[in-house]
Amino acid sequence: MSQQFASDNYAGICPEAWQAMQQANEGSLTAYGEDEWTTRAANAFRTLFETDCEVFFAFNGTAANSLALAALCQSYNSVICSSFAHVETDECGAPEFFSNGSKLLVARTENAKLTPQDVRTLATCRTDIHYPKPRAVTITQPTETGELYTIEEISALSATCRELGLRLHMDGSRFANACAALGCTPADMTWKAGVDVLCFGGTKNGMAVGEAILFFDHALAEGFDYRCKQAGQLASKMRFLSAPWVGLLESGAWLRNGAYGNSCALRLAHAVRDVPGLELMFPVQSNAVFLRAPEKVFIALQERGWRFYTFIGGGARFMFAWDADPARVDELAADLAACSV
Amino acid sequence: MSQQFASDNYAGICPEAWQAMQQANEGSLTAYGEDEWTTRAANAFRTLFETDCEVFFAFNGTAANSLALAALCQSYNSVICSSFAHVETDECGAPEFFSNGSKLLVARTENAKLTPQDVRTLATCRTDIHYPKPRAVTITQPTETGELYTIEEISALSATCRELGLRLHMDGSRFANACAALGCTPADMTWKAGVDVLCFGGTKNGMAVGEAILFFDHALAEGFDYRCKQAGQLASKMRFLSAPWVGLLESGAWLRNGAYGNSCALRLAHAVRDVPGLELMFPVQSNAVFLRAPEKVFIALQERGWRFYTFIGGGARFMFAWDADPARVDELAADLAACSV
Amino acid sequence: MSQQFASDNYAGICPEAWQAMQQANEGSLTAYGEDEWTTRAANAFRTLFETDCEVFFAFNGTAANSLALAALCQSYNSVICSSFAHVETDECGAPEFFSNGSKLLVARTENAKLTPQDVRTLATCRTDIHYPKPRAVTITQPTETGELYTIEEISALSATCRELGLRLHMDGSRFANACAALGCTPADMTWKAGVDVLCFGGTKNGMAVGEAILFFDHALAEGFDYRCKQAGQLASKMRFLSAPWVGLLESGAWLRNGAYGNSCALRLAHAVRDVPGLELMFPVQSNAVFLRAPEKVFIALQERGWRFYTFIGGGARFMFAWDADPARVDELAADLAACSV
Amino acid sequence: MSQQFASDNYAGICPEAWQAMQQANEGSLTAYGEDEWTTRAANAFRTLFETDCEVFFAFNGTAANSLALAALCQSYNSVICSSFAHVETDECGAPEFFSNGSKLLVARTENAKLTPQDVRTLATCRTDIHYPKPRAVTITQPTETGELYTIEEISALSATCRELGLRLHMDGSRFANACAALGCTPADMTWKAGVDVLCFGGTKNGMAVGEAILFFDHALAEGFDYRCKQAGQLASKMRFLSAPWVGLLESGAWLRNGAYGNSCALRLAHAVRDVPGLELMFPVQSNAVFLRAPEKVFIALQERGWRFYTFIGGGARFMFAWDADPARVDELAADLAACSV
Repeated sequence: MSQQFASDNYAGICPEAWQAMQQANEGSLTAYGEDEWTTRAANAFRTLFETDCEVFFAFNGTAANSLALAALCQSYNSVICSSFAHVETDECGAPEFFSNGSKLLVARTENAKLTPQDVRTLATCRTDIHYPKPRAVTITQPTETGELYTIEEISALSATCRELGLRLHMDGSRFANACAALGCTPADMTWKAGVDVLCFGGTKNGMAVGEAILFFDHALAEGFDYRCKQAGQLASKMRFLSAPWVGLLESGAWLRNGAYGNSCALRLAHAVRDVPGLELMFPVQSNAVFLRAPEKVFIALQERGWRFYTFIGGGARFMFAWDADPARVDELAADLAACSV
Repeated sequence: MSQQFASDNYAGICPEAWQAMQQANEGSLTAYGEDEWTTRAANAFRTLFETDCEVFFAFNGTAANSLALAALCQSYNSVICSSFAHVETDECGAPEFFSNGSKLLVARTENAKLTPQDVRTLATCRTDIHYPKPRAVTITQPTETGELYTIEEISALSATCRELGLRLHMDGSRFANACAALGCTPADMTWKAGVDVLCFGGTKNGMAVGEAILFFDHALAEGFDYRCKQAGQLASKMRFLSAPWVGLLESGAWLRNGAYGNSCALRLAHAVRDVPGLELMFPVQSNAVFLRAPEKVFIALQERGWRFYTFIGGGARFMFAWDADPARVDELAADLAACSV
Repeated sequence: MSQQFASDNYAGICPEAWQAMQQANEGSLTAYGEDEWTTRAANAFRTLFETDCEVFFAFNGTAANSLALAALCQSYNSVICSSFAHVETDECGAPEFFSNGSKLLVARTENAKLTPQDVRTLATCRTDIHYPKPRAVTITQPTETGELYTIEEISALSATCRELGLRLHMDGSRFANACAALGCTPADMTWKAGVDVLCFGGTKNGMAVGEAILFFDHALAEGFDYRCKQAGQLASKMRFLSAPWVGLLESGAWLRNGAYGNSCALRLAHAVRDVPGLELMFPVQSNAVFLRAPEKVFIALQERGWRFYTFIGGGARFMFAWDADPARVDELAADLAACSV
Repeated sequence: MSQQFASDNYAGICPEAWQAMQQANEGSLTAYGEDEWTTRAANAFRTLFETDCEVFFAFNGTAANSLALAALCQSYNSVICSSFAHVETDECGAPEFFSNGSKLLVARTENAKLTPQDVRTLATCRTDIHYPKPRAVTITQPTETGELYTIEEISALSATCRELGLRLHMDGSRFANACAALGCTPADMTWKAGVDVLCFGGTKNGMAVGEAILFFDHALAEGFDYRCKQAGQLASKMRFLSAPWVGLLESGAWLRNGAYGNSCALRLAHAVRDVPGLELMFPVQSNAVFLRAPEKVFIALQERGWRFYTFIGGGARFMFAWDADPARVDELAADLAACSV
């Protein structure tokens, strides 16, 4: 099919990840992560994050997030999140499944970004035994609407978490996009700002499959290797999950891919900004563009072969990955303009 | 490192799987299995098995087995297996985790192959409410010791299962080796012999990652797509899990790889059969060779750089994948002979 | 302490339940429900409900509700409920725990009563695999605000459930109060109106401990005895859970207790209806009275030694059990009036 | 029916427990354990055990054991136990259910008593990630065969646990019998000997329902109140679970009941010791007598109306509770002699 921007999961494997897989495919190698590629990938994360964090690899984001939250919580604990959070809206109850019942306490706000006040309200509204005890907060960076928490906002959230005895988890399925957009170091956006656990997305960053889970507090990682194994997230041929990370991280492609996706989002946003009837639903801060338009515009757009989702607020979502073709972005912009007449 | 035969997980991706991934990597494609590669892979399974089965893809064997068993059982049910079964010995409690508590009832026999009598004994020894109610039987084909159930043996097991109200699951992490060795069709060894659910191993067959779960009884597959999603086993870029299957199945490589691994096992077995002090622990019926030898032989072998596991009965295990180098097999045979002097 | 109306759990064991326990305490009896009291209690339910339902006994309402919902759902299913529902607000994640992850889909309405439209909206808003598949609806009769579903309303809900492939569960922790208030038969309010499973509350009806779970569809009860056992809900000395039911049901005390609690609620409501500044938050339809009043009224009331909860909408809740002393109800009314001056 | 000794669960409520329930039934009282009976019961335990332990109440032994083990373990941990252990043989997978998958590692020994060597072997035989990580040891005191661990044996087990990083749980469903038989203090047999958590059985000790869970290490009890609530083990009218403990503990009945049951077991054992063909299967150390006899003896005994279980080793089990009638014990002895002719 012609390139579509319905999801950044529509993209394939980027060259740097591919080449690393190709190299890793030479010869026989020890299984279950006892190989040099896996060690090298973990070390690449430690170098990138400028800290001796604990690094684990899982197959997908649903598992990575759920395992990380399960490591923070007991079954009777709860996790505070936004009503836009992927863990709440698109993981089919995975967090509850992996944790054996931890409830998500959902901030019913207009905005996808949690505030310290949201956290405080949800964490303190019930203190009796009949309601799950809050234990973790999860934020998505960038959010499901493509918005960014500033480092100050993350720090403010983590300060509230510390005060209330909560742990802070970051769902970074598009972490690279956030780093590129904020222009900060991975360390700045995570452990230096008080994040305890990060799920760093590899799939949307250009890999075939695979996410990394980074614990900045070693104590929280205790037994996490067993947890991954039991939950069906330990790859036997681990090198094919870890080598692509070597390819992405050592070459810098992880950040270039993120920056490139972001630039395509801006390109589209810029191209359609003056089209009458089209409206940006959220500020374009990473690789997503959400457009509000009359229903007929969307119908016309679909008739021209474009695919997109409208599950957030009824607007059209366009996501850009490492492989976005600028000409195709421009085509989309032109079609959007044409359909809006 | 020089090629090792400690595990068939040490092998990389075979050419047919690799090429399919390469082809699948061209352009953007719909996510979560709504793509043509996934449809084509599922259909390739249906063709191969000569039946309209339900086909699902998971990341690894632990998850595939556990999800399949969870689909057959409620938490208060139990699963009958051999004491050699991978689900019992090497999945870190995954079956219990995915099913929320289904207990494994383990046949404590000398042999890795379950018999109808084993099943009957375990299924009927307790019928009170204080003990989990048996609901499924799982067999590994070939077994963890490399042995094969004949089609008659599978049929006899399934007849006992039917009689006792049990479902029959086959852990086929090396299913291709079994097919090659028995020289029968996949259909003969599974649904025609009464198997309800098969986990068909892709990783050991030459893929980077991925297993297929085939339900021959459609009713058992109800909701299984949701089950996979919730358990963190739905790949967003599913094409990279499904395309390699297309490569393996359509080309016939799946069977060639299996046959080749088997032949290497026989090559080794043949080469060392007259070495004094060495003894085959189990008949060599698939791609595994288990050797009993004095401790000092193993030490000497390790000193020559060979890696192997001794977790089954203290013998040395050697496993052969699609990539086994015959010269290296011969080297192993020679070293075994030399160390046994 | 002087009698309080903060909760109908503050009451003790009513005479009819007590006497039955006393009789059951004579001599030795078979354990785990294989005794005549348990058979007799189950039959008393079948007589009362005019149908051959399946009857089980559990220790408390949290377990009864959660086990019933777990019997209806797989882990990837969801349960539709009101935002006022006890399963959502006061069971500490028990439904998610017992079901291994079934999510509650909460109707965020002003009213504690679910409507067919609420059910339809929640059941159909998402049909993709990334969101738990709705499988059950739970209603509380009377609701946590003391309101009643009419039989027509229940029938309308069950019709919607049938249409959408959902099962209907009734949390009847105060089922007796509902029967007494509606003046209908237990059959009318349950299976004749399309309820699939009922949790009938014994504790609030005058027992020390114990709830009954009634399945009107036998197929849904399959394995439920094992489910109870595994979940720690099978009493060894079962007679002490079942005999009180014999005492309540055979004597008609169950209904008298319900009617009496209701009458006390009306007595209070009547007595304070003209007190300026006091306002009924919800129609008084069972044994609960919710009063809205200025903060200072509540403070004054507490100073006079009254205990009450304000967790629903900030109003004061008063609940009346079989043991409510009319003089004490009148005292409360008088103090409410005095504090409102 | 005439009194039977098939199980000590066949007995009713002893007078001291009954009277306490009767007293507790006067007036209205705060729910969920916020009442004076519950405080008093917890304090009675602290006095009895001479330590400031954490005390919780659950409905039955299955739940008490499972919750205690779940508090010690994560889902990927394992629990070492004897093959005779109730958690393994008679709880229908409850430990696996409550813990979300913790596996029981079963010592397959002839004897119901675990030894330090059993623990060491099971705890150290596997140290790889593919097998659940041992975290707790559970022993039953007295064992399911009525035998006792000496204090020295418990201390030796706990020393091995400490060395290996394991926690020690005691299933004391007949704890009182053990104390009476050993003539030691509860403290001596538990925390002073290194037990971390004790489940103290109330039901078999003379209560209608209810067990106590005592944590001697406060840190292990963190969140246990939430855990009980979520798992459906928090009684709303808690006084009826706690008051009987006050009755048992403050009066000393707990110990008298235990001693009495033991004496009846000895009475039977003594009376039949010279009967030809009858053989004690295990030393009579608490309130159980296991007899081996020819099949026809058991048949004849059943024909005379006696009930008993034969699930352990095919022998007949007789258990004596607080209510055993000595005349009836003698009748049993006489019938055993008569049937053995």
